[in-house]
Amino acid sequence: MFSTLKRLLIGKPLRTEQLKEEKLPIWKALPILSSDALSSLSYGTEQILLVLSMVGAASLWYSLPITAAIIGLLTLLIFSYRQIIFQYPGGGGAYIVSSDNLGWFTGLIAGASLLIDYTLTVAVSVSAGAAAISSAIPAFHKHVTLIAVFFVIIVMALNLRGMRESGTIFAFPTYLFIIGIVGLVITGLFSVATHVTDRQIVQIPTYLPTGLTWFLLLRAFSSGCSALTGVEAISNATPSFQQPETKKASRTLLILGLLLGCMFAGTSLLAYLYHIVPRDTETVLSQISAHTFGRTFPYFYIQGTTALILILAANTSFSGFPLLASIMARDKFMPRMFAVRGDRLNFSNGIILVAIAAIVLILIFKGNVERLIPLYAIGVFLSFTLAQSGMVRRWWVHREHSWLPKLALNALGAAVSFSVLLIFAITKFSEGAWIVVLVIPCFIFLFYKIRRHYESIANELRIDCNNERPEPKDHVIVLPIGGINQVVKNTVSYAQSLDGDIVAFYVGFDKETIKKVETKWEMWNPDIRLVTTLSRYRSISQPLTRFIHLVETHAKGRHITVLIPEFITRKWWHRFLHNQTAILIRFLLRGRKNIVVATVPYLLRK
Amino acid sequence: MFSTLKRLLIGKPLRTEQLKEEKLPIWKALPILSSDALSSLSYGTEQILLVLSMVGAASLWYSLPITAAIIGLLTLLIFSYRQIIFQYPGGGGAYIVSSDNLGWFTGLIAGASLLIDYTLTVAVSVSAGAAAISSAIPAFHKHVTLIAVFFVIIVMALNLRGMRESGTIFAFPTYLFIIGIVGLVITGLFSVATHVTDRQIVQIPTYLPTGLTWFLLLRAFSSGCSALTGVEAISNATPSFQQPETKKASRTLLILGLLLGCMFAGTSLLAYLYHIVPRDTETVLSQISAHTFGRTFPYFYIQGTTALILILAANTSFSGFPLLASIMARDKFMPRMFAVRGDRLNFSNGIILVAIAAIVLILIFKGNVERLIPLYAIGVFLSFTLAQSGMVRRWWVHREHSWLPKLALNALGAAVSFSVLLIFAITKFSEGAWIVVLVIPCFIFLFYKIRRHYESIANELRIDCNNERPEPKDHVIVLPIGGINQVVKNTVSYAQSLDGDIVAFYVGFDKETIKKVETKWEMWNPDIRLVTTLSRYRSISQPLTRFIHLVETHAKGRHITVLIPEFITRKWWHRFLHNQTAILIRFLLRGRKNIVVATVPYLLRK
Repeated sequence: MFSTLKRLLIGKPLRTEQLKEEKLPIWKALPILSSDALSSLSYGTEQILLVLSMVGAASLWYSLPITAAIIGLLTLLIFSYRQIIFQYPGGGGAYIVSSDNLGWFTGLIAGASLLIDYTLTVAVSVSAGAAAISSAIPAFHKHVTLIAVFFVIIVMALNLRGMRESGTIFAFPTYLFIIGIVGLVITGLFSVATHVTDRQIVQIPTYLPTGLTWFLLLRAFSSGCSALTGVEAISNATPSFQQPETKKASRTLLILGLLLGCMFAGTSLLAYLYHIVPRDTETVLSQISAHTFGRTFPYFYIQGTTALILILAANTSFSGFPLLASIMARDKFMPRMFAVRGDRLNFSNGIILVAIAAIVLILIFKGNVERLIPLYAIGVFLSFTLAQSGMVRRWWVHREHSWLPKLALNALGAAVSFSVLLIFAITKFSEGAWIVVLVIPCFIFLFYKIRRHYESIANELRIDCNNERPEPKDHVIVLPIGGINQVVKNTVSYAQSLDGDIVAFYVGFDKETIKKVETKWEMWNPDIRLVTTLSRYRSISQPLTRFIHLVETHAKGRHITVLIPEFITRKWWHRFLHNQTAILIRFLLRGRKNIVVATVPYLLRK
Repeated sequence: MFSTLKRLLIGKPLRTEQLKEEKLPIWKALPILSSDALSSLSYGTEQILLVLSMVGAASLWYSLPITAAIIGLLTLLIFSYRQIIFQYPGGGGAYIVSSDNLGWFTGLIAGASLLIDYTLTVAVSVSAGAAAISSAIPAFHKHVTLIAVFFVIIVMALNLRGMRESGTIFAFPTYLFIIGIVGLVITGLFSVATHVTDRQIVQIPTYLPTGLTWFLLLRAFSSGCSALTGVEAISNATPSFQQPETKKASRTLLILGLLLGCMFAGTSLLAYLYHIVPRDTETVLSQISAHTFGRTFPYFYIQGTTALILILAANTSFSGFPLLASIMARDKFMPRMFAVRGDRLNFSNGIILVAIAAIVLILIFKGNVERLIPLYAIGVFLSFTLAQSGMVRRWWVHREHSWLPKLALNALGAAVSFSVLLIFAITKFSEGAWIVVLVIPCFIFLFYKIRRHYESIANELRIDCNNERPEPKDHVIVLPIGGINQVVKNTVSYAQSLDGDIVAFYVGFDKETIKKVETKWEMWNPDIRLVTTLSRYRSISQPLTRFIHLVETHAKGRHITVLIPEFITRKWWHRFLHNQTAILIRFLLRGRKNIVVATVPYLLRK
């Protein structure tokens, strides 16, 4: 039944050879890998305004230069990552680039921050998606957490079905969203230009308004940088592209940069022109769109596609997280199970893990985007910094053709990313950034311990094929019995087919019963010695473990096998009607170095 | 660690021979076995007044004749049960008496109703105890459910420690309660007699007040009968008494009847004289006591001892339920585990079961005594009726010395109990009595099915010692391997010590790996055939089950043993770092008729 359900939800298993077919063309890679970056639009502008509006309406103008600065940073990042794509066609996430060039420790920092970042992408995106829905339909406002969790589960299920299918499903919403936002920006700007009542005179303030400190401006800038999260996804996933992989990936990255820059500039400009102030119950994007179209069809189209792309943005992480986890697992920094491909050729364990972690975050932060952002961007910019720094070192060491300008570009990227990181850590420390600062070292420690464990195990298990031979030994078979019946006959028959000394063992609670069993055993006479013990405390486990210990000391290096007869009942509830001594004994002997426990089944006919 | 904790909570195990020492003298048996009956005082009067007060204050006088009728019924029951004690010195609960004399089906009805009754005793008593506490300390009123559940757990723990110790602990509160209530009644009646302001003229109404129908009067009577619950406990537990058991038990029963009758009469009379009307937040007993003493020390003494005896009343069921369950388990109507004595010689499984069932009831009914009572008394009076009817038949069949008056007494008891049962079922049907009417047949069906199962198993397992011999057969050993390493060497060594054909089996996910394993195997050359399979779907379980199925068809009646190597890690968390294929394989092969699964341990050094 379980496997039928699994088939229904996940689809039928795919062969390993089908892996190659799972490669993506640009038109499909763009929506899948950039939905995270593009969807950041729906909260980027809002995060800037949230900080500025604390001071007052006069400071809202500063959202424009901040937006410009962020777009500048975006351009820098796009070109820096483009260089990574060509240098790391095998998928150069910050983890690979930094461990490759700066050593495994730096790699682990990048790995930890990326795993956190992926998880937060899921949490932030579905929460923002739920917010987009509740802006359009206020009745849902109370249930944002539930809606967000529900969407995580949906996206997880789609991903467990495998990438290709997900691709087709996920392509449409991204394109629909791009059409919607571009339409919104054009319509909005056109209407501002033509309608006299709406026209605004952009007045450049010559001094900082009262209360607007540099600290606040930097905080607004760093909050707005949340719009850049996700631009690294494409360079991480280079091997998912069709041939020629690097070219297609780099072209996709450029398209993404162009789209994101234009759309971000447009929405920030419209928000300023419309004098929009963030509200608790309605997103800034919803306000812009309602102001442009009224609550008509285009408004609901934009809210709908925003929600869709946000929910599906989580998908970026559902490809990124499992891939990174599998790479780290192959490097023995994460448990082996993350490197195993599931039925549908995806890394199902990673998919399930990121879903669970995101759901926990959503529940803790009650689906509030503003409270999740401080945790979010620190990991992102930490990995940006490490990837760029790794590239700087790479150019320096390899000194390939025209390495100097390339080094300069990556160095600039690294410096700016690091500055943003510092701004973030300082301005958002008390609001949640401290959690990430605390968690990353813990993760690194864990990765390190896992690697150590695997290495020592590998050393321990290595075998010298020429000199180490199997060493057969004699052995002793212990047969605990609970009386003399068909089950015992079955077990004794089995024991006699093995080559060893057999001893049956009976624990009785009073002398009469023991006497009776001994007499019956003699009568039956199966040619096996019976040892009986009186348990004054009515415990079976203690006398049995004592007896096995005794056998161990006498066995002198021989193997010891304990045969446990086990009832197999026809109906599941019948199990409660039998004392499950077999389970108890197996539990007792679990982890005993020299003892093999064998369960001999006895199928009840009724 | 678990066993240390168990020792601390439960105490050290007792020997089976110590069972005899656990016998009770009267002074200890009285408080243990009669706390249920005596504690019913705290809600008996209240239940009568709750029904009468629905009509108005004028009808409260009727509580006096109703009390008188209930005391009459009590006398009848005491003498009827006295006869049972002498006829069934081995502990004659309704279950034994009725199955002995009226057949097993009637016995099962009695068994079902008694088990329900015991569980409800626990639920009702601790709920009433929580009510007594919250009457004295109103701040606790909101937490009655929690308090009740807490007390069930305490009583369970005390019982798991064993009867004798419980006896000493439980003796004091009952005596303190008796002293308290007797003192209250004497002080109260004395003050009414001496203080002119308090003196009441008892006016006997000559007609029924408007609204007070015969139906309501009967309902009040049946509600008040809840004060009689628990009188059967002594006759059920005759074997717990010191020698001579029957004499001591019968004397204890008479003392109980006398005490209960006087105290019930006294409190009902005081309630009437004080014009007390039931309140939601304060029990009737608390009102009587507050009216007599004011909120001074004697008041808190009475509330405290009432709470204590009520909570400990639950103890009656913690001896009764497990004893009945063990008797029914010996008769094969309940799972065998209820017949097993625990470390401290008590039937620990029964103790745990009744505690869990009571907690569930308390949570469902939110610790409300009034709502639990309708479920309660129906089981009690059903078992009264069956026990008395059984006795009637016994006298009729055996016709011992002076049997006729004894038969008449039991017949009267049966008739009256049956009438109360009918009144109860009719007047309380919609308030919860229907649940019990529904549950009893379900229980009987379950008992019957369990008995059938045990009988058929016993037939199936019986062995003919003279003609049925163990039949040793050849066997095949299957050895799934995941590579060639020390673990495999260990397992192969073990396999070669058994006498059988060995075949190793490897599942690979691609051809190169398989080739590599095959070459390495040849190099190692352990004299065992290796079968490899390519799993295109990266599943280990499917090829393995297919292979084992193949071996089965070729084995032609030979035993098949599957050897599973199992890592034993040094630290628990290391387990997550290894694919637990062993667990998976054991799960897959679980319940396969002819396959013995043996786990060969490999202890990791690090």
